[in-house]
This record gives sequence, structure tokens and C-alpha cells, in this order.
Amino acid sequence: MKITRNDLEELDNRDPLNQYRSEFNIPEDILYFDGNSLGALPSATVHRVNEVILNEWGSNLINSWNSSGWYTLSETIGNKIAKLIGADDGEIVCVDGTGLNINKVHAVALKMRKNRKVILMEETGFPTDAYITQGLIDQLEQGHIIRFIKKDEILDAITDEVALVSLTQVHYKTGHLFDMKTITQKAHAAGALVVWDLSHSAGVLPIELNKCNVDFAVGCTYKFLNGGPGSPGYLYVSKRHQGKQIQPLTGWWSHKKPFAFEQNYRPKNDIGQFLSGTQPIIALAAAEVGIDMVLRADIALIRRKSIELGEIFIRLIQEHLIDYDLDIVTPRNGADRGSQISLSSPNGFAIIQALKEVGVIGDFRSPDNMRFGFAPLYTRYTDLWDAVKKLQVIMENDTWRAERFNNPIDVT
Amino acid sequence: MKITRNDLEELDNRDPLNQYRSEFNIPEDILYFDGNSLGALPSATVHRVNEVILNEWGSNLINSWNSSGWYTLSETIGNKIAKLIGADDGEIVCVDGTGLNINKVHAVALKMRKNRKVILMEETGFPTDAYITQGLIDQLEQGHIIRFIKKDEILDAITDEVALVSLTQVHYKTGHLFDMKTITQKAHAAGALVVWDLSHSAGVLPIELNKCNVDFAVGCTYKFLNGGPGSPGYLYVSKRHQGKQIQPLTGWWSHKKPFAFEQNYRPKNDIGQFLSGTQPIIALAAAEVGIDMVLRADIALIRRKSIELGEIFIRLIQEHLIDYDLDIVTPRNGADRGSQISLSSPNGFAIIQALKEVGVIGDFRSPDNMRFGFAPLYTRYTDLWDAVKKLQVIMENDTWRAERFNNPIDVT
Repeated sequence: MKITRNDLEELDNRDPLNQYRSEFNIPEDILYFDGNSLGALPSATVHRVNEVILNEWGSNLINSWNSSGWYTLSETIGNKIAKLIGADDGEIVCVDGTGLNINKVHAVALKMRKNRKVILMEETGFPTDAYITQGLIDQLEQGHIIRFIKKDEILDAITDEVALVSLTQVHYKTGHLFDMKTITQKAHAAGALVVWDLSHSAGVLPIELNKCNVDFAVGCTYKFLNGGPGSPGYLYVSKRHQGKQIQPLTGWWSHKKPFAFEQNYRPKNDIGQFLSGTQPIIALAAAEVGIDMVLRADIALIRRKSIELGEIFIRLIQEHLIDYDLDIVTPRNGADRGSQISLSSPNGFAIIQALKEVGVIGDFRSPDNMRFGFAPLYTRYTDLWDAVKKLQVIMENDTWRAERFNNPIDVT
Repeated sequence: MKITRNDLEELDNRDPLNQYRSEFNIPEDILYFDGNSLGALPSATVHRVNEVILNEWGSNLINSWNSSGWYTLSETIGNKIAKLIGADDGEIVCVDGTGLNINKVHAVALKMRKNRKVILMEETGFPTDAYITQGLIDQLEQGHIIRFIKKDEILDAITDEVALVSLTQVHYKTGHLFDMKTITQKAHAAGALVVWDLSHSAGVLPIELNKCNVDFAVGCTYKFLNGGPGSPGYLYVSKRHQGKQIQPLTGWWSHKKPFAFEQNYRPKNDIGQFLSGTQPIIALAAAEVGIDMVLRADIALIRRKSIELGEIFIRLIQEHLIDYDLDIVTPRNGADRGSQISLSSPNGFAIIQALKEVGVIGDFRSPDNMRFGFAPLYTRYTDLWDAVKKLQVIMENDTWRAERFNNPIDVT
């Protein structure tokens, strides 16, 4: 029997997470499936940012570095993120951007495996992770290479040449969820270290960094953590690796006595060594609100709803769009994917633009990937129906063929 | 004849910059002399940040990366800063923090002078500039050294061993203004490159990067540019040095085709190569407001008032506090200093704390430095009188000796 809109309304009504939707500012005329790229605005963020600007900055001025906890905000938020992804206090700082954090942890990991030169990365992984690593390799001039491998060959590729296995837990295009535990275990058995990029997974599925014995991790806060555009990233360093090797972006916040204004650098010997310089406090404070909200919700419920949203979306595509050339590239098995369903089509760019015009926001990743992300705190079951029906109209009427949807992105 | 408060009231009334004070949110009961550390809040920032959060993020969501110019905001603001410090369009990006930007430009400068190993820095310069350079040197493992020199010996120290002269234009403690033109000239004559840190000078005195033939510069936006706590830094790369050497923090924003999601890094060949990853948009947008305000004001008027504020402050100290052991460590000649007057006293920490208790905010820099910064857009002439009189009361009554003002900073 086909799914009806009524079925989905019922699911919304029974949804144990449905009170969260009202805590976001989401325009009524938008069906938003891009929380995997930029999460929606929590209403509380508006209040909090105004408080930071008017009271903490405006009224208390420089004193707020101490009195409002600005100076330790990276650690404060880091400890909150830790609760969300299975780490301990003092293992995470919320700081800089994801790419810079990758630079730091890769630099340290390579120092820890001085005699090995191979960094394993998945061949279609998020490019910036590879770009920043290439920059590091060029700078080190020690003969490191990135070995790009297919996702099915990762376990076999972990040999004793490998210094470092660096992977995104959920693939940004396909939504494929990598097996953190098994890969980490295999890496350790071969004497390698692991770095996990959690950008597309934190906040939307249970993560157990310490139980999986992970070495390093990084992530961003602007997707499923709803931290705002370009909000700061974070990094995790297992306690067992702290205080040994120095990350190279040795700004004053990572100094043992930052206010002693000594001439020579002396590193902190804890997670604080992975800080660098002064952080943008307004952006950090905004990020904290989104993280607090996810922390209040039960991550098991979030995961359950996320999988169900994916299942229903796939079924709706099959029930209403079977005639069109839209391949589902995300794993069908819920346990094998993050919180998105991606379709592929050679006309992907134009279709995403046509959808946008009728208020359905997904996104396009070159050359043919159409991503639909589900944020269980605000995506409604009925949103899936409404989006698929709008997509059906576009496909039936060939709306996407309009000149204005031509692909303007030069990918040469 | 001694200065009277009436004289200063008259100066305030005639001050061509006095309309700007009302554009800031400054508490009535505070005399703020720490704009050289954290600038005050421009009222317009509150409106702008709410617009970014509610309209751009909240309503337009992911679309704002294009429709609100988020994606190019680093360049947009960079071009505004360029107008303020004598650079051209396409020579500055507002991005990351000052320390990270130093890492980038030092890395490039050292590549450009492969055969030289010496980096000259002033021995009491802002420590983070040296810390981040030490981290870079350790990472490169090419035998570079920092040669710390006294400020009077800089010109003589520029020999043909020197790769790079890296200086803060205005000394954070003493307020001493270094001669950008002469030092740059001497460096070039010796085949060296220069990096100027403008953190304590941009926005408060005229700077002519291109006329001085500067190679690289960095700075922060949270002091005299009033960008907010920890707001993003910026960096300048002369057009003649762009597109040659790659800065090593090669995040996706510095890629030639960031949205092509290619596997391999290809650098932009313009100032965009000095970007790294996604930037905190809310923080950037806040910073832009402060920069816009300084751009509206005449920098020559700002400088004139800044020098005059310093002169008057020195005279008031001499007229009212001559009995106390407060050395003036800032150059007496206005042309030789930035926009601060620093006093030194072994009791500096306690005195600054006692001042804070009566609403006068300066700051303390270990071991004995008391800084009073003047922000000509909002510091009033009468503020100087009121602050000095309060300081006089503290000194006369030995208030600062109270137990609660004991120095809690461990500088060992």
C-alpha cells in the first residue's frame, strides 16, 4: 500500500521530537532539506547573540574576557560537544575551521608515525580534507603521499606503510556511513592512526569516539549542530595523545602562560595546545546555542527519526518518481547511511534549481549529485511528501529544462 | 599654565570627530581606555548582526552564500580595509586570525628567500607573532632562526643573512611607532622581505602600505577597527608577490575551482590563495560595520586627535601625578607613537585594578606596564581629565595597596 500524506501527518503528530521544530526560525514557505549544509536558525540564538553583543561586549567591554568566560569558551563548548560524540572533558576544543583543524591533527599524527609516509583517504571524500593535507605535505617535504582509495578497499589498503587513515564518517555526496569501529581497529592493528571528520555526522547519529578508540577527529558546527554560517569547527584529540607532539599553529592561546608574554613558545600540555589564536566570540556563542539544543534531545531518537525519514523519502521517490531517471545513490539500509538521501541525475543542477523556485531547498554537488538532508529536529514527515510531490510536478512538466536553470558552474 | 577641565570641554565641543561618539554604545559610568585591546561597540553593529541572523541566515538560509555575498565577504571587507591602509583592491582578505595569517605570510616569505635563514623580530614585540613563527620554523626543519633584536638596532641588524624582517608597527606595550618606510627600504636594499603587523595601528593612523613598498602585512579588526571580540584578522600581500608561492593552509576557499570538488589542490593565483576554509560570517559581518565607520571618518583628523590626546594625557600626568613613581614609557614625541600612553610602575597591576573599580578601564601588561589607549572616534578630551583625577585619588590614598588588588597572574 502506498504511503499517504495522512500517514505522514500521523507520524508528525506522534513524533517525540516534534516540539523542537517550533524552536527554530524557519520560513513557512520553505521546505528545507539542506540542514546537512547549513542548519536552520534556532530562535534562542537571536537572543543569545544580542546578549553577547549588547551586554558582554557593549557594556562589560574588555572585562568579559574573564567575567563572561570568553577566554575559555572554546574549551567550554568543546566539553559540550564531547558529550555528544562520546569523548571526555578536556578532549575537544571548538576552534578555527575544520580545514585548519585537519592541518593540526594531521601534522601531529604524522610526527607520531615518523617512519611511515602514506596517508589513506577515500578517493571521493570531501576535497578540502585532501587539499589541506596536500598543503601540509608540500610544506613538510618529507615524502608523504596521499593514497586515494575506493571505499570498499579501505580495510585492505591499511598496510604497515600507512601512517594515517583520514576519513569522513558520512560521505558528503552519497551519505554513506563508514564503519568507525572496524576501520579504527584495523588501522591500529596495522600500527596506523585514524582521523575522522564528523562534519556530516555529529548531531545526527550516535558517535562513540572513545569507545571506538579513535585517535583524532574534527568537525564543523554549522550543519546538523545549527551553529550558523561558517561557525567555528572543533577538534578531538584522545587524552592518550595529548602533551606529546606539538601542533604547528602555535598561537598564543596554546601557550602554557599566555599572559606572561614570554619571548619563547612553551606549549600547553593538554587539549589547549590545539588552540591557536583569539577566537571570534560572537560566532562561538551562536554555535553554542545550536549545540545546547542538540544536547537536550535524545540522540537515539534523532537517529531513529533520521533513518525513518530516509526510508520514507526513498519509498516516496519509488512510488511517485519511478518513471524518471533519478538514481538513489545513498545506501538503502538505514544503518549504512547518515542523514541524507542523494539522487543522481545528469540534469541534477537544473532540477535542484527548479525545486528551489518552488521553495524546496536541497543542494547540488557536481557533477550529478542532488542532496536532500534530513534534520530530525525540524524536518517533518509531511515535508517529504510535499517535496516529492513538487518534484513530481517538475519532472512531469519538464520545468527543469527551462533556459534559466542552465548550469552556470564551470567545472573544467 | 595648567590645563583645566574647562579647556578640555572646549576641545570636545570643537572636536570635528565628536559626532562619532554617539554612534557607539558605551556605558555612561565607564571611562574606557582599552580600545587598543577591544574597541567599543558601534550601535549599527547590533542592527547589522540581527539582519544577518534573522534575514540572511534565518530566512534565506543556504541561499545567502550567494545572494547575501557571504562567499565573497572576506574579499569585500578586505577591499575596504585596503582603502584604510594604502593598499589596492585585491591585495587584502579579511580572514582567520592574526596569528594564522602570520603563519601564511611567513611561510610564503621564507619560500621566496630560500637561501636565507634569519628572521628578525624586535625582542619585546608581541609574543604571539614570535610563537607562531617558532611553530613554523619547527615544522619546516630548514634551520631558520629568529634573531631577536633591540628596537634601536633594527636597521643595523638587517644584513644579507636576513630573509625576513617581521615587526609590529606600533609596539603593544610602549606604543612606540616603528618607521615603516625606512625599515622596509633598508630591508629591500639588503634583499630581505618585510612583514608588518598592523594590529595596533590600523584605524588610528595613516598607513601607506603600497607607497612604502611593503611586501606583506597582517592585522586584527577588534582593536581600533571596533570589530568585536576576537573578530577576524586580515592579511595583505602586495600584488607583485601574488600567484608565485603557495601559502600552506590550503583549504578549499583558496582552490581555483572550489565548487568543482576536484581531488587535487590547485591554488588560486591571486589574493584568494591566502584564504583557507569557510569563515564565520556573523563575525565578519560585525567586523565590517566597525571598518565602515572608520572609513567614513578622516584618518588625518583621527591621527591629529590621537596625538593631541596623548600630549594632554602626558601633561595631566605631569601636572597631577608627579609625586608618584609612574614612568611614561611611550615616546613623548607624537610622531613616534601610536594611540596609547603607557606608564610603568612596579605596582602596575594593582593600580589598574583599583582604577577599574572606579570605572576607568586601562589594562596591564606584565610585568609593570599600564596601558591607556585612545580611540579618537569615542575618547573625549574630558575623559583624560576625569581618569587622571581618579588615578590621583587612588595614588593619594594608596587605595591600590588593598589586599584585593594583589597580582594573581603567575608569570613564572
